[in-house]
Amino acid sequence: MNWLGEVKWNEQGLVPAIAQDTTTGEVLMVAWMNREALAETAATRRGVYWSRSRKKLWRKGEESGHVQEVDGIYLDCDGDVILLKVNQIGGIACHTGRRSCFFRALSGEQWETVAPVLKDPESIYK
Amino acid sequence: MNWLGEVKWNEQGLVPAIAQDTTTGEVLMVAWMNREALAETAATRRGVYWSRSRKKLWRKGEESGHVQEVDGIYLDCDGDVILLKVNQIGGIACHTGRRSCFFRALSGEQWETVAPVLKDPESIYK
Repeated sequence: MNWLGEVKWNEQGLVPAIAQDTTTGEVLMVAWMNREALAETAATRRGVYWSRSRKKLWRKGEESGHVQEVDGIYLDCDGDVILLKVNQIGGIACHTGRRSCFFRALSGEQWETVAPVLKDPESIYK
Repeated sequence: MNWLGEVKWNEQGLVPAIAQDTTTGEVLMVAWMNREALAETAATRRGVYWSRSRKKLWRKGEESGHVQEVDGIYLDCDGDVILLKVNQIGGIACHTGRRSCFFRALSGEQWETVAPVLKDPESIYK
């Protein structure tokens, strides 16, 4: 069995993939991958995902320029989650213009925004 | 809408939850949460998940003693992934006796084990 076959793809043929900043350890985002996305990620050393809404490969940064240079690809004990260690070009992973997608923290009984917008999304995706 | 209602639960009423070591930034594991698991995690400040195989709440560490003290609870931009920052008691999150579940790294065309077993699983779950 080749390495792609050792991944436990779900019923839709997907697994969640976490992108983590190699240097800071910050968790930047979670997206989905199919076999093709993972194979291309490994071959090109760039973060490539499967967009469930657009139903096509999503080469992260293809519009924004915020590509992810992949330093390492990890698989968990169950084989059903991928972890990428990445160098996030532009320092922005989130479509909201923030560094990380995890910018809301639970504070009491509320989700509080705890990270600033670094760049106006309209200027990122024009 | 209360804070639990802002989470986008999937068709099974679940979301993936990442546990990350607060101090080192290491990604330790990914498991699933339902509303009850997330509510209990927030109330007790301990990592509580939903076991899809056992179909019941899984209070991490209830057998092993390797509980997770929760320092922060984050939600991503889409509202469909939770990130916990935790203090992993015992320093072992994985059922294999390793620190992290992400102990396999892609090396060429093979998944290579890159982290040691710190404690024999048989001595953890007895």
